[in-house]
Amino acid sequence: VSALEALAAALPPGAVVTDPAVLADYRQDRALDPDAATPLAVVLAERTADVQAAVRWAAEHRIPVVPRGAGSGLSGGATAVEGGIVVSTERMRGVAIDPTTRMAVVQPGLLNAELKREAARLGLWYPPDPASFEFCSIGGNVATNAGGLCCVKYGVTTDYVLGLEVVLSDGTAVRLGGDRLKDVAGLSLVKLFVGSEGTLGIITEITLRLLPAAPPSRTVSAWFDSTAEAGAAILEIASAIRPSMLEYMDHLSIDAVEDELALGLDREAAAWVIARSDEQDPEGREVRIMLDAFARHGARVSEAPGEEGERLAHARRIAIPSVEKRGRLLLSDVGVAIPRLADLIAGVEAIAAEHRVEIAFIAHAGDGNTHPLVLVGDGDPDHERRAHVAYGEIMSLAIRLGGTITGEHGVGKLKRPWLADQVGDDVIALTQRIKDALDPLGILNPGTIFEAPPKGTTHAR
Amino acid sequence: VSALEALAAALPPGAVVTDPAVLADYRQDRALDPDAATPLAVVLAERTADVQAAVRWAAEHRIPVVPRGAGSGLSGGATAVEGGIVVSTERMRGVAIDPTTRMAVVQPGLLNAELKREAARLGLWYPPDPASFEFCSIGGNVATNAGGLCCVKYGVTTDYVLGLEVVLSDGTAVRLGGDRLKDVAGLSLVKLFVGSEGTLGIITEITLRLLPAAPPSRTVSAWFDSTAEAGAAILEIASAIRPSMLEYMDHLSIDAVEDELALGLDREAAAWVIARSDEQDPEGREVRIMLDAFARHGARVSEAPGEEGERLAHARRIAIPSVEKRGRLLLSDVGVAIPRLADLIAGVEAIAAEHRVEIAFIAHAGDGNTHPLVLVGDGDPDHERRAHVAYGEIMSLAIRLGGTITGEHGVGKLKRPWLADQVGDDVIALTQRIKDALDPLGILNPGTIFEAPPKGTTHAR
Repeated sequence: VSALEALAAALPPGAVVTDPAVLADYRQDRALDPDAATPLAVVLAERTADVQAAVRWAAEHRIPVVPRGAGSGLSGGATAVEGGIVVSTERMRGVAIDPTTRMAVVQPGLLNAELKREAARLGLWYPPDPASFEFCSIGGNVATNAGGLCCVKYGVTTDYVLGLEVVLSDGTAVRLGGDRLKDVAGLSLVKLFVGSEGTLGIITEITLRLLPAAPPSRTVSAWFDSTAEAGAAILEIASAIRPSMLEYMDHLSIDAVEDELALGLDREAAAWVIARSDEQDPEGREVRIMLDAFARHGARVSEAPGEEGERLAHARRIAIPSVEKRGRLLLSDVGVAIPRLADLIAGVEAIAAEHRVEIAFIAHAGDGNTHPLVLVGDGDPDHERRAHVAYGEIMSLAIRLGGTITGEHGVGKLKRPWLADQVGDDVIALTQRIKDALDPLGILNPGTIFEAPPKGTTHAR
Repeated sequence: VSALEALAAALPPGAVVTDPAVLADYRQDRALDPDAATPLAVVLAERTADVQAAVRWAAEHRIPVVPRGAGSGLSGGATAVEGGIVVSTERMRGVAIDPTTRMAVVQPGLLNAELKREAARLGLWYPPDPASFEFCSIGGNVATNAGGLCCVKYGVTTDYVLGLEVVLSDGTAVRLGGDRLKDVAGLSLVKLFVGSEGTLGIITEITLRLLPAAPPSRTVSAWFDSTAEAGAAILEIASAIRPSMLEYMDHLSIDAVEDELALGLDREAAAWVIARSDEQDPEGREVRIMLDAFARHGARVSEAPGEEGERLAHARRIAIPSVEKRGRLLLSDVGVAIPRLADLIAGVEAIAAEHRVEIAFIAHAGDGNTHPLVLVGDGDPDHERRAHVAYGEIMSLAIRLGGTITGEHGVGKLKRPWLADQVGDDVIALTQRIKDALDPLGILNPGTIFEAPPKGTTHAR
C-alpha cells in the first residue's frame, strides 16, 4: 500500500481527502501566501484519536503536518507545505459549559463566536475578541494566543486557558492543567503550548475560564486633525485608567468604513479614537477622564450613548474587511509600548511615502498593538514588490522602537524572517532546543516560527 | 587552585561565602526540610554577571546550583543539596517604575512588600499578595508563580509578568518578552520560566505590569456552625460573582488567631468566611449577593465597615503564623475545583481523625486553593511520622478529587514524590524532555520538580 493508502486506512471513512479541488481550498489561510504548496491530503479530524492517527502516520513517514483551525490566520501559520498534509480541526466543534464553575470545555474547531453565544445563553462571557471572531476558531486562537479589542482591560487568550489536551509529535495525547483555577504542579506546559502555532503539538481540547456577563459600557468618540495629538491623548488615557476599549483608526480606514456603512463618520479627520469604560461608577470618572484628555488634545469629542456606541464599535470591527475591499492587503500586527505609539504611526506614514504605497493604520491603541494594512495594488509587480518592502520595513521599525513584529497574529511563515531581529540569536537557539526536544523529526508545521528543515531532507535531525 | 577558590576568583570580593555559621542559614527555606544539606558555598549575587559567573563555574565543575530568593518557600524549592552551592539574589533589590506605562522593572531579590510600597507611592498597585508578602521576594514569587488572597479576582503572578532576564544553565543570559503588553513573537518562553522553580534557569530581572490603585472594597464576615454549609455558601457566591477576596478559616485557625489578636472572633464557630467586593456599584449588588448566600446557609453574617474590615483581613493574613505558634507545621496548598471544596474539607477532617493529628484548615476558598496545616507535634517521633503520613494523604485526596498537589507554593522537593500521581507519567516524560534540553547537565536545582540525578554521578546525562 502507498503511504496515503495507509493514512486513509488509519482513519474513519471520508476523513482523508485527496480530491484536488478540495485540496486547493486548504493551500492557504487568510494570509494568502502566494508561495503556498498543495497538500498531499487533508485530514478532517472528528476526534482526538483521528489527530493521533494522522500524526503517528506522519511521524512514521517523516511527512510534515500543518495543523489548521478555521483558516483565518493572517501570518501564514496554516499555509500548506510541500509534501505535507493538513490536519483540520474544523469538524471538532464540541462545547460544554459548567455555569457553576464558569468553565467551558471545547474542541478546537469551535468558532470564537459560537463559544461567545453558548456562554451568553448562560449569562456568561468569553472576553477574547479578535476582529475575526465570527469566523476564527478557538483552537486557532489558542495556537496563536490571539488578542482583540478587549485585551486592554481583559487580557489575551492565554489568560483564559486553564487546561489543554495536546497531541504530541509522536502521536501521544497528553492532558495539561485542567479545571483548577490555581495549579503550579510542574512546569507551565499549558502556557508553553498556548501561542506555539502548531509547532510543538496539536491542540485537541481546551478548558477555558469564563467571566460573568460583560458589564454595560459607555462609549466615547474623538475625531482628530492630527495623528500625533491622537497618539498623545491615547497615552494620557492609558496611563490614567484601564479603559475596556481604546481603538484607533486613521484617515484611510475611516474612509473605507464610511464607504461601507454610511454612518456619517468624519472623512476629513486624520484619526478617530473610540474608547469605552465599563466601570459601574455613577459619577463616570473614567468617561470624564477620557473626554477631558481628548478635548485637551484638540479632538472633537462626544459620548455615543446606547445604540450609537454599538454602531461605532461595529464600525471599528469591520475596518479590516472594509479596507480589504480596496485591494489585497499585507496585514501586520506590530506592537510597541504605548509611549512609542505616535512614533510608530509617524514612521509608518514615512514608509508609505517613501515606497509610494497606501498603508491604512488601525490599532488596539490601548495596548500598543497596531494593524498597518499595506495595500498590495492591482497586480503591478513593481507595486507588489514595494508593498512587500514596506511590510518588512514596518517590522524593522517596530523592532527599532523596542516593539514586537507580532502582537496577536503569530509569527507564522510570513514573519519568521524577522523573528531573530527581534528576539536575538540566543533566544532563537533556546527556542530551537525546546522545538528539537518536543518535535525531534521536525514534522510539526515546518517553516512556522522555526526555519523549515532543508528541502528534500527526511526532516530527521 | 581548588574549585571553590576558582569560584571566589570569578566573583567580586565578599560575594562567595563559606563561613560554616553562615552556610547553616542557607540550608533550609521555610519548609524546614530536615534532610537539607549544607551547601559548599553561598554566592551573594549583586548583578546578573555574578549569577552568570556562578552558573558558568557550576557547569564547568558539574556542581548543583540551588537558586534562592528570600528563603520563604514552603515546598523546599530552595533546600540546599549535597555538594551544591546556593545562589542567593537577596542583594539584588533594584526597582524602577514607569508610571506612564504602569510597568516595573525589578531585580529578583526585591520583596513583594517593597514593590507594593514603591507602586503605591505612585498611585499604582501590584496585586499578587502571598500571605508572606512582607518577607517573600518577587524572584521567588515568579519562580513559583505565587498566588495569594487577590487571585480570585486579580489572578496570579504569571498574569503580571511581561518580561524576564534569565541566566541559563550554561551561564548565558537571555532577555525574554519585555515592555509590550501584547507580544506573540515566538514561543511563550516568559510563561515557561514563570513557575519553573529554578530548574530551567535563574531569573535576574523581571518586567511587571501594574494596575491603577486598588479600588476601595466592602468586607463581609460570616460565621458558620457547619463547615459543609460554609463550603456550600462559597460555591454559591463564586458561581454568581467575582469577589475580590473569598477566604475560609476553620475552628482551629480561628482559635489560634484569636489567641494572637483578641479581636473577639467567635471561637465557637466551625468556620469563618471573610469576603470582599470592590465593585464601585452604589447599589452594592455583590455585597447583597454575598450577605444573602451566607444567610441562606445559616451563617451569622454582617458587613464589617472600614477599619473593622481591615482588622478582619489582617486576622486572615496572620492565620498561618498564628497556627505556627502551636508547633511546627507541614504546610500544604492543595487545590480543587470549587464544587469539590466541601469534599476536600471533610476529607481532611477524616485524615486528621484517622491519624490522630491536628490539621488547621485555611483556604483561598474563592479559587479552591487551600492550606491544610498539619501540626507535627513536639518531637514525639510517632506523632511526626503520623503527621507526614497525613501530609501525603492530603495530596492523594486532592488528586482523587481531580485537584492539584500545589496551587501556589510550587512542587519544590517536598511534593515531588506526588507529582506523577497528579499529572501522569506521560506529562512527567514531556517535562523531562524540556528539562534535558535546557539543563543537559542537570545542575539547576536538582530534586525540585524533577527527580535528582543519582547521587555520586557527575550530573552529566
